[in-house]
Amino acid sequence: MMLVKNAMEPLVAEVLNDNWQLINMPCKCEQCKNDVFALALNLIPPRYVSKANGYAYVKAQYFDKQMHANILVKIGEATRKVSEQPQCDNYTKEGVNA
Amino acid sequence: MMLVKNAMEPLVAEVLNDNWQLINMPCKCEQCKNDVFALALNLIPPRYVSKANGYAYVKAQYFDKQMHANILVKIGEATRKVSEQPQCDNYTKEGVNA
Repeated sequence: MMLVKNAMEPLVAEVLNDNWQLINMPCKCEQCKNDVFALALNLIPPRYVSKANGYAYVKAQYFDKQMHANILVKIGEATRKVSEQPQCDNYTKEGVNA
Repeated sequence: MMLVKNAMEPLVAEVLNDNWQLINMPCKCEQCKNDVFALALNLIPPRYVSKANGYAYVKAQYFDKQMHANILVKIGEATRKVSEQPQCDNYTKEGVNA
Protein backbone atom coordinates (compact mmCIF):
# COMPACT_ATOMS: atom_id res chain seq x y z
CA MET A 1 0.00 0.00 0.00
CA MET A 2 0.98 3.53 -0.67
CA LEU A 3 2.05 5.58 2.31
CA VAL A 4 2.46 9.30 2.13
CA LYS A 5 2.03 12.09 4.66
CA ASN A 6 1.50 15.81 4.43
CA ALA A 7 4.32 17.15 6.58
CA MET A 8 2.28 20.29 7.22
CA GLU A 9 -0.22 18.30 9.31
CA PRO A 10 1.96 17.84 12.43
CA LEU A 11 3.42 21.35 12.03
CA VAL A 12 -0.02 23.01 11.89
CA ALA A 13 -1.22 20.77 14.75
CA GLU A 14 1.75 21.90 16.86
CA VAL A 15 1.11 25.60 16.24
CA LEU A 16 -2.63 25.17 16.80
CA ASN A 17 -2.16 23.27 20.07
CA ASP A 18 0.39 25.80 21.33
CA ASN A 19 -2.03 28.68 20.69
CA TRP A 20 -5.43 27.08 21.32
CA GLN A 21 -5.80 28.55 24.82
CA LEU A 22 -5.23 32.05 23.48
CA ILE A 23 -7.62 31.81 20.54
CA ASN A 24 -10.92 33.60 21.02
CA MET A 25 -13.85 31.62 19.61
CA PRO A 26 -17.54 31.25 20.52
CA CYS A 27 -17.13 27.47 20.82
CA LYS A 28 -13.95 25.63 21.74
CA CYS A 29 -15.16 22.05 21.49
CA GLU A 30 -13.10 19.34 19.86
CA GLN A 31 -15.18 19.44 16.65
CA CYS A 32 -14.62 23.18 16.22
CA LYS A 33 -10.91 22.68 16.85
CA ASN A 34 -10.84 19.98 14.18
CA ASP A 35 -12.67 22.31 11.80
CA VAL A 36 -10.09 25.06 12.37
CA PHE A 37 -7.34 22.47 11.83
CA ALA A 38 -8.86 21.22 8.55
CA LEU A 39 -9.58 24.72 7.21
CA ALA A 40 -6.09 25.95 8.06
CA LEU A 41 -4.58 22.97 6.22
CA ASN A 42 -6.71 23.81 3.18
CA LEU A 43 -5.20 27.31 3.17
CA ILE A 44 -1.60 26.06 3.29
CA PRO A 45 0.15 24.45 0.30
CA PRO A 46 0.70 20.78 1.14
CA ARG A 47 4.15 19.22 1.38
CA TYR A 48 3.55 15.53 0.99
CA VAL A 49 6.50 13.28 1.69
CA SER A 50 6.81 9.60 0.86
CA LYS A 51 9.52 8.49 3.26
CA ALA A 52 9.68 8.02 7.00
CA ASN A 53 12.35 10.71 7.37
CA GLY A 54 10.49 13.11 5.09
CA TYR A 55 8.70 14.89 7.92
CA ALA A 56 11.90 15.51 9.84
CA TYR A 57 13.47 16.87 6.66
CA VAL A 58 10.61 19.29 6.01
CA LYS A 59 10.57 20.43 9.64
CA ALA A 60 14.33 21.02 9.69
CA GLN A 61 14.37 22.68 6.28
CA TYR A 62 11.30 24.89 6.37
CA PHE A 63 9.91 25.29 9.88
CA ASP A 64 11.42 28.65 10.76
CA LYS A 65 9.91 31.82 12.28
CA GLN A 66 8.49 32.81 8.91
CA MET A 67 6.63 29.55 8.40
CA HIS A 68 5.43 29.66 12.03
CA ALA A 69 4.05 33.15 11.40
CA ASN A 70 2.42 32.07 8.13
CA ILE A 71 0.75 29.11 9.83
CA LEU A 72 -0.55 31.39 12.61
CA VAL A 73 -2.08 33.72 10.02
CA LYS A 74 -3.85 30.81 8.32
CA ILE A 75 -5.08 29.50 11.68
CA GLY A 76 -6.47 32.99 12.31
CA GLU A 77 -8.34 32.93 8.99
CA ALA A 78 -9.68 29.45 9.72
CA THR A 79 -10.73 30.53 13.23
CA ARG A 80 -12.75 33.42 11.83
CA LYS A 81 -14.54 31.17 9.35
CA VAL A 82 -15.43 28.55 11.95
CA SER A 83 -16.50 31.25 14.43
CA GLU A 84 -18.93 32.69 11.89
CA GLN A 85 -20.58 29.32 11.30
CA PRO A 86 -19.76 26.70 13.93
CA GLN A 87 -20.67 23.24 12.64
CA CYS A 88 -20.55 21.37 15.93
CA ASP A 89 -23.50 19.84 17.79
CA ASN A 90 -23.54 22.75 20.26
CA TYR A 91 -24.62 25.05 17.45
CA THR A 92 -26.29 23.02 14.72
CA LYS A 93 -28.67 21.24 17.14
CA GLU A 94 -29.78 24.40 18.93
CA GLY A 95 -29.65 26.69 15.92
CA VAL A 96 -31.15 24.65 13.12
CA ASN A 97 -33.36 22.13 14.84
CA ALA A 98 -34.54 23.98 17.94
CA MET B 1 -6.60 14.15 19.49
CA MET B 2 -7.36 16.03 16.33
CA LEU B 3 -8.43 13.93 13.36
CA VAL B 4 -8.57 15.36 9.90
CA LYS B 5 -8.07 13.85 6.47
CA ASN B 6 -7.30 15.25 3.05
CA ALA B 7 -10.14 13.85 0.94
CA MET B 8 -7.92 14.15 -2.13
CA GLU B 9 -5.66 11.36 -0.83
CA PRO B 10 -8.01 8.42 -1.53
CA LEU B 11 -9.22 10.03 -4.77
CA VAL B 12 -5.68 10.48 -6.14
CA ALA B 13 -4.77 6.98 -4.92
CA GLU B 14 -7.73 5.54 -6.81
CA VAL B 15 -6.84 7.30 -10.07
CA LEU B 16 -3.16 6.38 -9.67
CA ASN B 17 -3.92 2.72 -8.99
CA ASP B 18 -6.35 2.53 -11.91
CA ASN B 19 -3.74 3.92 -14.28
CA TRP B 20 -0.47 2.58 -12.84
CA GLN B 21 -0.15 -0.28 -15.36
CA LEU B 22 -0.44 2.16 -18.25
CA ILE B 23 2.06 4.70 -16.94
CA ASN B 24 5.45 4.62 -18.62
CA MET B 25 8.31 5.10 -16.16
CA PRO B 26 11.91 3.89 -15.95
CA CYS B 27 11.24 2.39 -12.51
CA LYS B 28 7.91 1.13 -11.23
CA CYS B 29 8.91 0.12 -7.71
CA GLU B 30 6.74 0.92 -4.70
CA GLN B 31 8.97 3.83 -3.65
CA CYS B 32 8.70 5.49 -7.06
CA LYS B 33 4.92 4.98 -6.97
CA ASN B 34 4.79 6.62 -3.54
CA ASP B 35 6.90 9.50 -4.87
CA VAL B 36 4.47 10.03 -7.77
CA PHE B 37 1.58 9.88 -5.27
CA ALA B 38 3.17 12.46 -2.95
CA LEU B 39 4.19 14.83 -5.76
CA ALA B 40 0.74 14.66 -7.37
CA LEU B 41 -0.85 15.52 -4.02
CA ASN B 42 1.47 18.52 -3.69
CA LEU B 43 0.19 19.78 -7.07
CA ILE B 44 -3.49 19.49 -6.10
CA PRO B 45 -5.21 21.90 -3.67
CA PRO B 46 -6.03 19.95 -0.52
CA ARG B 47 -9.59 19.44 0.71
CA TYR B 48 -9.20 18.55 4.35
CA VAL B 49 -12.32 17.35 6.11
CA SER B 50 -12.84 16.95 9.83
CA LYS B 51 -15.72 14.51 9.96
CA ALA B 52 -16.09 10.84 9.15
CA ASN B 53 -18.59 11.55 6.38
CA GLY B 54 -16.48 14.36 4.94
CA TYR B 55 -14.70 12.16 2.42
CA ALA B 56 -17.95 10.76 1.04
CA TYR B 57 -19.27 14.30 0.75
CA VAL B 58 -16.24 15.53 -1.19
CA LYS B 59 -16.30 12.47 -3.45
CA ALA B 60 -20.01 12.87 -4.19
CA GLN B 61 -19.77 16.63 -4.64
CA TYR B 62 -16.58 17.05 -6.62
CA PHE B 63 -15.34 13.77 -8.09
CA ASP B 64 -16.66 14.14 -11.63
CA LYS B 65 -15.02 13.66 -15.02
CA GLN B 66 -13.37 17.07 -14.77
CA MET B 67 -11.70 16.34 -11.45
CA HIS B 68 -10.69 12.89 -12.70
CA ALA B 69 -9.06 14.55 -15.72
CA ASN B 70 -7.35 17.17 -13.53
CA ILE B 71 -5.96 14.48 -11.24
CA LEU B 72 -4.63 12.51 -14.23
CA VAL B 73 -2.84 15.62 -15.51
CA LYS B 74 -1.18 16.16 -12.12
CA ILE B 75 -0.20 12.47 -11.95
CA GLY B 76 1.38 12.94 -15.38
CA GLU B 77 3.40 15.92 -14.14
CA ALA B 78 4.47 14.00 -11.04
CA THR B 79 5.42 10.98 -13.17
CA ARG B 80 7.69 13.12 -15.35
CA LYS B 81 9.46 14.59 -12.32
CA VAL B 82 10.04 11.22 -10.66
CA SER B 83 11.16 9.71 -13.99
CA GLU B 84 13.79 12.41 -14.40
CA GLN B 85 15.26 11.75 -10.96
CA PRO B 86 14.15 8.47 -9.39
CA GLN B 87 14.90 8.49 -5.65
CA CYS B 88 14.49 4.78 -4.98
CA ASP B 89 17.23 2.34 -4.02
CA ASN B 90 17.35 0.95 -7.57
CA TYR B 91 18.72 4.29 -8.75
CA THR B 92 20.39 6.07 -5.86
CA LYS B 93 22.56 3.07 -4.87
CA GLU B 94 23.76 2.34 -8.40
CA GLY B 95 23.87 5.93 -9.57
CA VAL B 96 25.33 7.88 -6.68
CA ASN B 97 27.31 5.36 -4.69
CA ALA B 98 28.53 2.91 -7.34
